[in-house]
Parts: sequence; C-alpha cells; structure tokens
Amino acid sequence: MTHTARIAVIGAGAWGTALAMQAARAGADVSLWARNPATMSAGRVMPRLPGFALPPTITVTSELPRQADLILLACPMQHLRATAAMVPACAPLIACCKGIERETGLMPLQVLTGLFPHSVLGVLSGPNFAHEIAAGLPAAAVLASPDRAQARRLADLLTTPAFRLYASDDPTGVQLGGAAKNVVAIAAGAAMGAKLGENARAALMTRGIAELARLSHALGGRPETLSGLAGVGDLLLTCTGQASRNYRLGLAIGQGTPAPQAAQALEGVAEGMATAPALYQLAQRHDVSTPVIATVTGLLAGTIDMAEASRRLLARPVGHEFA
Amino acid sequence: MTHTARIAVIGAGAWGTALAMQAARAGADVSLWARNPATMSAGRVMPRLPGFALPPTITVTSELPRQADLILLACPMQHLRATAAMVPACAPLIACCKGIERETGLMPLQVLTGLFPHSVLGVLSGPNFAHEIAAGLPAAAVLASPDRAQARRLADLLTTPAFRLYASDDPTGVQLGGAAKNVVAIAAGAAMGAKLGENARAALMTRGIAELARLSHALGGRPETLSGLAGVGDLLLTCTGQASRNYRLGLAIGQGTPAPQAAQALEGVAEGMATAPALYQLAQRHDVSTPVIATVTGLLAGTIDMAEASRRLLARPVGHEFA
Repeated sequence: MTHTARIAVIGAGAWGTALAMQAARAGADVSLWARNPATMSAGRVMPRLPGFALPPTITVTSELPRQADLILLACPMQHLRATAAMVPACAPLIACCKGIERETGLMPLQVLTGLFPHSVLGVLSGPNFAHEIAAGLPAAAVLASPDRAQARRLADLLTTPAFRLYASDDPTGVQLGGAAKNVVAIAAGAAMGAKLGENARAALMTRGIAELARLSHALGGRPETLSGLAGVGDLLLTCTGQASRNYRLGLAIGQGTPAPQAAQALEGVAEGMATAPALYQLAQRHDVSTPVIATVTGLLAGTIDMAEASRRLLARPVGHEFA
Repeated sequence: MTHTARIAVIGAGAWGTALAMQAARAGADVSLWARNPATMSAGRVMPRLPGFALPPTITVTSELPRQADLILLACPMQHLRATAAMVPACAPLIACCKGIERETGLMPLQVLTGLFPHSVLGVLSGPNFAHEIAAGLPAAAVLASPDRAQARRLADLLTTPAFRLYASDDPTGVQLGGAAKNVVAIAAGAAMGAKLGENARAALMTRGIAELARLSHALGGRPETLSGLAGVGDLLLTCTGQASRNYRLGLAIGQGTPAPQAAQALEGVAEGMATAPALYQLAQRHDVSTPVIATVTGLLAGTIDMAEASRRLLARPVGHEFA
C-alpha cells in the first residue's frame, strides 16, 4: 500500500473501541465515531471497556467520515439500519454485528445491500471477546464479502500477527453462525439446567451446527462455513467462556423457570430470544428441518415445556448424521 | 428382528460396563466379559463405575463368546490387539476405543482388519462419558463401518430413545476425531495456561478441527465427519466437561512446566501424549499441513517452548479458512 489506510469505526461501545484499537495496531489512521465524544476524551478512559485507555493515535469524533478506505459499523444489530443510513457511501462498509433484524428477518449484509446497492460490502464475525482484542491477545475471525479478492484486500487492512482475519466469500454462512450461536447456547443451557448431562449438551451443540449447515446450504451459503471460526468457533466461545446471557437464560428455563420470568431475571437482553423465532421462520420458508431452533423457539414462546423439549431434542429417530 | 440379539461386551471397565447396560436397555441378551468376574458379581457393584449396580439381566463371565450377534471391544486402545486376538470371529466386531496404536500408528479398525479380514467390522465413537450412559442420560454417538447398511443394522441393536446411534460409512473420519481430540485438548489447555485468552482457545480448537478435516480427506475419509459427533462433538465434551487429563496436561505446559514433569504430575495417562507424534507422522507421510498437531508434538518432545508454540500456532500467515 502506498498510503496509510484511513479506517473509520462507527460506534464506540466495547466492540467498536476494540476494533479501533486493532485497526490502529495494524497501522491505520483511525477515527472512532461516538455520539458524544466528550465522555470518551476525558482522560481517554473508555466507559464501555473498563481498564483500557484509548491510544492517542485514535481520533474520537462525532463527525461522520467523508473519506475513508474502510468503514466498520460496530453498532448492535438492531441499530444497524439507522446507523448505516447516516453514513456517506464513501468507502467499503463492513457490518461488525451479529444477529437478525427483528422487523424484517434480514441479516446484516442484506440490510446494508438495501441501503448501499453500489458499495463494496462485507461482514466481520468470529470468536472474539472485545476485551481480549483490546488487550492485544491473539484471536482469529472471518471477513466475508461476496467477492473473495475484495474480502482479502479489506481483511489485510486489519490483520496483525495477533489478529488473524481470514477472507471468505460466504457471507451467508458466516452471518448464520453469528446469529444462531445464541440460539444453540440457549439449547445447551437448557440441557444442563434440566440435568440431561454433558453428553446431551455436546450432542445438542453438534446437532445444532449440523442443522445450521443445512440451513446455510438452503440459503445459498456453504455448509462448511459453519464448521469454521464464525460457526463452531464462536459457539465454542459462547458455551465455554464466561457463561453467556443466552446460556444462562437456557439454564434457568431448563431448571423450570418460565421463559418470560427467566428473561426478566437477566441483566441485559439475551439476543437469542429474538433470533430463534426469526431463524425458525427462515428455516420454515426454505423447508429445512431445524429441530434445535424449533424447540428453542417453542420453549421461549411457552408452547412446549422442558419435558417435551427434551423429548423433541434427544429422542428423534436417527438417520444419517449430515442428511 | 425375530430373536433377541445376543451382544457380548469384552472389557468390564467403566466404558464396557456402561455399554453393556445400554445394550441391555436396548433389549439384548448381554454378556460382559471380565478377566476376573468374581470381583464384579459380589453384590454386582462395579468398581470402575461407582454408584451403579449391574442389572441382573447382564451375565458377567470370563468365557469368551462362541455365538453372538455383535461383539463390542471395550478395552483401552493399547490393549485392542491383544484383546481382539483372544476373541473368536463368530460375529461382527466393533472397536469401542479411541486412539492410535503406539507401535504401529494404526487406528482401531486397521488393527481389527489385520486380525479379522473376513468379518464385518466397525468402530463406535462420540461424546460419551461412561457414567452418564450408565445412568441412562441422553446421548448420541456414531457407529461407522465401511458399509453403511451394515453400520445401520448394527447401530439399531444398541439404539434406544435416549442413546441415539448414527450410522456412518466413514470410519477414517470417525477414528481421526476420537484420536485427535486429546491432542487439540492439550493445545487448548496450553493456550489457557499461557494466558492467551478465550478467543485464542476457541480459534485453536476450530483450526484444529479444520486440520483434522484436511487430514481425513488425505486419508480417504470425509472432511465433514470431523464436524460431527465424533469430531467437534467429542472435542466439545473434552474441553467443556470436567477438565480432561489432556487439557490439564496442556494447562501445566502452558504455565511453563516442562512436559515430562507435567505428565508425571497427572493421575493416569494423558492419551494425547502418544497420539500427537503418531498423528504428526501420519500427516507428514500424507503431506498435510497440521500446525496444531505439529506444535503439540514439539511441546511434548521439548523441542519448542511455549513462546515459540504461541508464535507457531497463532501468528501464521492467513489464507483461506478451509484450504
């Protein structure tokens, strides 16, 4: 590259801030857009990423970028449309959020494509806790775009020895993995809450991945993407790391707490509560059998109880593992 | 089926006993071969599976089966050859152990094929803690044989609503998963011991699965088998369940303890210590790049230290995730 890359990160939450720090490490000129930059510049201690100080090479601003080589949208999924709509189409745009838009059932790249039909677009996903990325600990993720060469070029702008960014041309599979891990985590938690055991949890998680691979295939994505960092990798992090909100929600449901009470008892939102019914509808529309997603959807809606859920999840007729 | 199936289980350790109990639940006439049946029949409390009593429908015997519909070999991998050699070739034989024979580098089915070239043979593998199977908790596993119809027929003899046995015609992939999970668990433990973080552990485990998929392909197996119960599923159980010996060995090595001392401090043997070099040789012979297996092999042999291991594992050039 002949000039220093200019990377704009939109959203100064934990994830946006960590991505800005990573972009700075990769040698870019970084601006971090915050609604209220004053709260951040005071001592440059970051309220959403306690224990870290923002390096001086990052400019915090409330002005949207007019010129950039890459724009990273690091807002929550449900704010993606409103956030992206503010941003001028001056550079390739990467959605760095996971999930499904509640009102439309769309995945991040579909939302962006509607808004920016002529821009280079992509998604970034993988097993990444923000505080570890901020600390510069090693990690890997996937940057997916319909054109692999573009994906590789953009990934190189963010890659350092400690943060390995693989390029993919399968945004569908990558986005499914990021959205569905929370649903599978609810199922895994429910199995443990109901004392079905660790064999059952491992079987459920594996069968969950298999049904996502089928769904990916039906949606025009590649099944093997679900075996990668954005699928199995992110699921591993969700279910082996500090128990996620989704896992804890499942645990409570498995122990017999009705879903609405279990959700109320959580601090914050379990993203899987919205994702499960959206994914289930998607699977129905494409005629794909997804018993894990269907059962979690039923548990959350209160249409089946845990005994029925166990029966549906674990006592199905057996056939071919990948059919 | 017109008659009650006769199933002989060879080996009365925890796993053999649990399999015998499962076979009895599936309605079979079960004999459990033990070197010294007297120790087991006294009160039928099982020394290797504390807290469980053997159901009266299971015959414990020191006589090898002369007639059976299925023989399950439930001995440790390193005893498979000697154990199988005692058994008359009167029925299909299923190896229920995981790993690689130290002296020969062979996998279970290869050992059996050498001894019983004219018998129907298979392997059983999956995310299965013996005490949970003994308790009748839900679980799933894979029974693989070169002929899928045979695999299905034999799997049906052991399947109940709570224990779902998938049929596979890819014994190579199934056996690789069972053998290699211990090696990947050592790598995962080492990453945590060296405080590389949870992102790094999730990335390593995912990359480990990807390299096993490549190795499976090179050996004539199917890559997707590694995404299933005998691959990802068993790895999930090993790394999320009560920490395995292999994981704990990795943890100590990651914290800076030299491998020989770390191994001595364990109760019992970490099977991955033998499997890592055997798999590495296999990969070399087939010209497959397996950085996780190579690095674990180097760490165990003391030819590289943890700093070098981290560099090799986590700072590789990035390319295509599945290439």
